[in-house]
Amino acid sequence: MEQTISKEDIIAAHERIAPFIHRTPLLHSSTIDMLCGCEVHFKCENFQKIGAFKIRGATNAILKLSEKERELGVATHSSGNHAQAVAKAARDLGIPAYIVMPRTAPPVKIAAVKGYGGIVITCEPNQLARESTLDGLVKETGATIIHPYDNYDVIAGQGSAIKEVFEDEAEFDAVFTPVGGGGLLAGTALTTHYLSPHTKVYAGEPEGADDAFRSLKAGSIQPSENPDTIADGLLTSLGQRNFPIIQEHVAAIFTVSEQEIINAMRLIYERMKIVIEPSCAVPLAALLKEKGRFEGQKVAIILTGGNVSLDKLPF
Amino acid sequence: MEQTISKEDIIAAHERIAPFIHRTPLLHSSTIDMLCGCEVHFKCENFQKIGAFKIRGATNAILKLSEKERELGVATHSSGNHAQAVAKAARDLGIPAYIVMPRTAPPVKIAAVKGYGGIVITCEPNQLARESTLDGLVKETGATIIHPYDNYDVIAGQGSAIKEVFEDEAEFDAVFTPVGGGGLLAGTALTTHYLSPHTKVYAGEPEGADDAFRSLKAGSIQPSENPDTIADGLLTSLGQRNFPIIQEHVAAIFTVSEQEIINAMRLIYERMKIVIEPSCAVPLAALLKEKGRFEGQKVAIILTGGNVSLDKLPF
Repeated sequence: MEQTISKEDIIAAHERIAPFIHRTPLLHSSTIDMLCGCEVHFKCENFQKIGAFKIRGATNAILKLSEKERELGVATHSSGNHAQAVAKAARDLGIPAYIVMPRTAPPVKIAAVKGYGGIVITCEPNQLARESTLDGLVKETGATIIHPYDNYDVIAGQGSAIKEVFEDEAEFDAVFTPVGGGGLLAGTALTTHYLSPHTKVYAGEPEGADDAFRSLKAGSIQPSENPDTIADGLLTSLGQRNFPIIQEHVAAIFTVSEQEIINAMRLIYERMKIVIEPSCAVPLAALLKEKGRFEGQKVAIILTGGNVSLDKLPF
Repeated sequence: MEQTISKEDIIAAHERIAPFIHRTPLLHSSTIDMLCGCEVHFKCENFQKIGAFKIRGATNAILKLSEKERELGVATHSSGNHAQAVAKAARDLGIPAYIVMPRTAPPVKIAAVKGYGGIVITCEPNQLARESTLDGLVKETGATIIHPYDNYDVIAGQGSAIKEVFEDEAEFDAVFTPVGGGGLLAGTALTTHYLSPHTKVYAGEPEGADDAFRSLKAGSIQPSENPDTIADGLLTSLGQRNFPIIQEHVAAIFTVSEQEIINAMRLIYERMKIVIEPSCAVPLAALLKEKGRFEGQKVAIILTGGNVSLDKLPF
């Protein structure tokens, strides 16, 4: 595969976004080590600005815009962490962010985007309405669309999380992330390929949203169809730019059941005393399920975010 | 008042226990600063070993025993964090820990004590049964009772938490802790008096368990009568050794309602993405209620622990 993001791109992305993000800690629990039969280090992006790693990619993409592009602002459609990330990154640069959100989005999420200064445009709750509303908006304003994952600058920005892990600790045998659209996974896989080539990259995916697992098996992108999982950050299909990177640099994707996700989530709350969103628990669930393969190894897991509705915890 | 714990006692306690405890981080949230109108630093004892600051005092008290006393072991009655702290500290030194627990204690708490190697003796769920069972046990085994708070070595050990805060950050105007039996509050107040004398010490207390507030007002220990609060670590009455220290060195105790405690707890989960037990939220609730007094100040809050039943979160 022709390399579309170079080592230098990832290093430059990290330098570019560093003033706008937190350098999050790497945490560790001896109980979880014991349960996994290996040494596990958790990269805590739940402590990141806006409560999720998404600020990394969005900030990198927006910082790479020209002066003229910046003036016209940025736009996206999202009801999740990417919406907050684009709003926050745009505000940091003093430019407008237009966020298309379904009118059924939880009021607390709409309020969060507005809290970061985002201009929210609501639409009917379906993909067609989201895309046509966004298109109309872009025609009207000239804003640049910042895609949540199918964007090389976003992928390079997400790669900065594992770069920090490798700076804090060396000699990892394996790295785990969750996989939704594949922004974090592709960024992590490429960064690992460049900076720690002997380290293998794995993803955990919910059985109820296993399009990446099926795509790897089929050798082509398989769409996510009626995904159903508590890991609500992982519902989307893989991006066009993400898939070839994942195909080349990811060793395996493991699927896990809803109960396995909930158990892993509870373990992190109880033993690490930190708040994570369900999507975060998927890689630990995969590691616990496949622990025979990783015995005695040194493993990093990226905990992607902490934006969970406390009223809806599954325990 | 004749000083019963010296500055040197507190410094020695910290050195003594350092190999057996975590040095916990001081965290910070710009949203919480904004809401409080001051700069707030949280000492995260929820990340401490056994999930609470109690390991500090128990470890100091046990390390101060003679060789002969250690051989005979230690004992206490507790259904909370102190039980786990004594069991864990005793195991670290290879000595037996006898823990009297009411037979109605949650199985998960009994399992946790046993998990740390504690020898659990169950009794009827009332104070008389707890004390008589403990007395019988001590007569039989010769074990030394480690009181959860009414013990100078425990108080000196608890003081080490705020000592670490002062080592990490300087120039605090105010320090807040919760108050139950007064071990942490007395240790914090004395340590602050010695190490940062211009810093004022405050406590938060639930309205439903306001014995310390009433005791300060009356000038003598007022017992806790039928306490009723979600902050289940703060139900006990002040200790004989704790009260005079608190009387001399604590500037004020503020009481807060159940709803104020729950709101502060939720704020910490949502904004700091960490898991705390309800007792921890009481000082922040007090600061939010009294924020007019602390405008623009630099404040430290000790988050005491993270051992909460996730099935019973109040949101």
